[in-house]
Amino acid sequence: MRSELDIDTAIERAAAGRFRAVITDRWNIGTAPNGGYLAMILGRAMARELADAGREHGDPLSLTTHFLSVARPGPAEVAVAIVRSGRGHSTLEARLIQRDEAQEEREVMRALGLFGDLGRATGPTDVKLAPPDVPPLEACLSGRPAGAAPRISERLDMHLAPGDASWLTGERSDDATLRGWVRLADGREPDALSLIFFADAFPPPAFNLRAVPLGWVPTLELTVHVRARPAPGRLRARFTTRVVSQGYLEEDGVLWDAEDRVVAMSRQLARAGRG
Amino acid sequence: MRSELDIDTAIERAAAGRFRAVITDRWNIGTAPNGGYLAMILGRAMARELADAGREHGDPLSLTTHFLSVARPGPAEVAVAIVRSGRGHSTLEARLIQRDEAQEEREVMRALGLFGDLGRATGPTDVKLAPPDVPPLEACLSGRPAGAAPRISERLDMHLAPGDASWLTGERSDDATLRGWVRLADGREPDALSLIFFADAFPPPAFNLRAVPLGWVPTLELTVHVRARPAPGRLRARFTTRVVSQGYLEEDGVLWDAEDRVVAMSRQLARAGRG
Repeated sequence: MRSELDIDTAIERAAAGRFRAVITDRWNIGTAPNGGYLAMILGRAMARELADAGREHGDPLSLTTHFLSVARPGPAEVAVAIVRSGRGHSTLEARLIQRDEAQEEREVMRALGLFGDLGRATGPTDVKLAPPDVPPLEACLSGRPAGAAPRISERLDMHLAPGDASWLTGERSDDATLRGWVRLADGREPDALSLIFFADAFPPPAFNLRAVPLGWVPTLELTVHVRARPAPGRLRARFTTRVVSQGYLEEDGVLWDAEDRVVAMSRQLARAGRG
Repeated sequence: MRSELDIDTAIERAAAGRFRAVITDRWNIGTAPNGGYLAMILGRAMARELADAGREHGDPLSLTTHFLSVARPGPAEVAVAIVRSGRGHSTLEARLIQRDEAQEEREVMRALGLFGDLGRATGPTDVKLAPPDVPPLEACLSGRPAGAAPRISERLDMHLAPGDASWLTGERSDDATLRGWVRLADGREPDALSLIFFADAFPPPAFNLRAVPLGWVPTLELTVHVRARPAPGRLRARFTTRVVSQGYLEEDGVLWDAEDRVVAMSRQLARAGRG
């Protein structure tokens, strides 16, 4: 059975350096598709472009995506170009394009990505970042809020450490940290590419801050470093915001796999306070 | 008196979307120009392109630079394009180009940047990140190592918290954190643009780890978020590496200005272990 995430991030080659995609509304938050979902489409197109060029290093080591305008569910195109390709690393550029009513092209996202081969990388390893102490699932809070849950929450099997998502209970803990377990609801196991999605799948920890109004927190720029290919099983995550300044905030994420290895580190710059 | 940093990052318009620059060897580490120095040239070209287009939001809110091949001191060109320009934000792309012996163009760096106006940004502020406790200058270690100091160290007035740069004393503390004071040796005050440079100006904290060989730690990708325009005076910085994995490492930086405000947050992905 093909997973929802794979179906909804599928791309089809349209021409040299050009792919067709269909953005679905199944990953929406409100009326806008989730940014990590969209970034994963770009990552997939870049990896395909590389593979079709005969390059066998398709792991997204670092993917930066700039969100230029709001994406709409519906048809889209991805324009991809290899900027530089070497023996072990390649750098690519991707643009997500949608057409308006007049069929005018509108660039929705722009990304730069560094790809490599995490299956064959060699060099020193020394990890100081232990996975957070997240209680077992049954002691956690469901990530699916009651009432008007965003559609993306139907696709996720998410469990948050109790107390971390304080805004859900009407309080604000003043600690912008969120820890939890996550996997896809249909059981699809994580892989390197899907970590781009997971890095933006949690609600904003900044909602724990009294200064930050609950509402849309649009991502301006998202950078995901994939540090290892994840083992099958649930991911463990910690997301933190430390600096909210003049309406801008950063959100740092770390994802660990079921074998307690750091598999991704992410940072995004987002805008808060539009209420 | 014009500052060395301003002279060496100066750009001159050559054509629409094209600038001339001269990379000097004054910011070298070994034989390669420092990555933050080069990224600042790209940031300056992007800001100029915006200003010349009549846009008055020239602060680099987020600048991601991919290092494609080694830059050489000498003439260079910067190709800049505005990807999207809105009322308060603009996104630009920049490419640093050098020519080889046969005058063949070689792309050395590619950058994506989001620009805005930190002088007029409004919205909530809540900062949880206090500046590190760095001892007064006279109790610090000079950032200028004895012997074969890199040329960049002549341009910097840097003071490191004692004990933090443990590899300089022949030991390895196993704590990849580096705290210190920094300003330009010629007294030029920091501004938003120069924070791109400062975010890559410290030695790699990973040298404190026994697993990491002392040697070249080339940056693959550097992202700097400028969070506020710095006040005049010395910057305080903390750089940390938490995950060295298969030879890849991240380095996170935070810069505070003389008024204790967070002015920049940076993260880079680098390669270690080539000895």
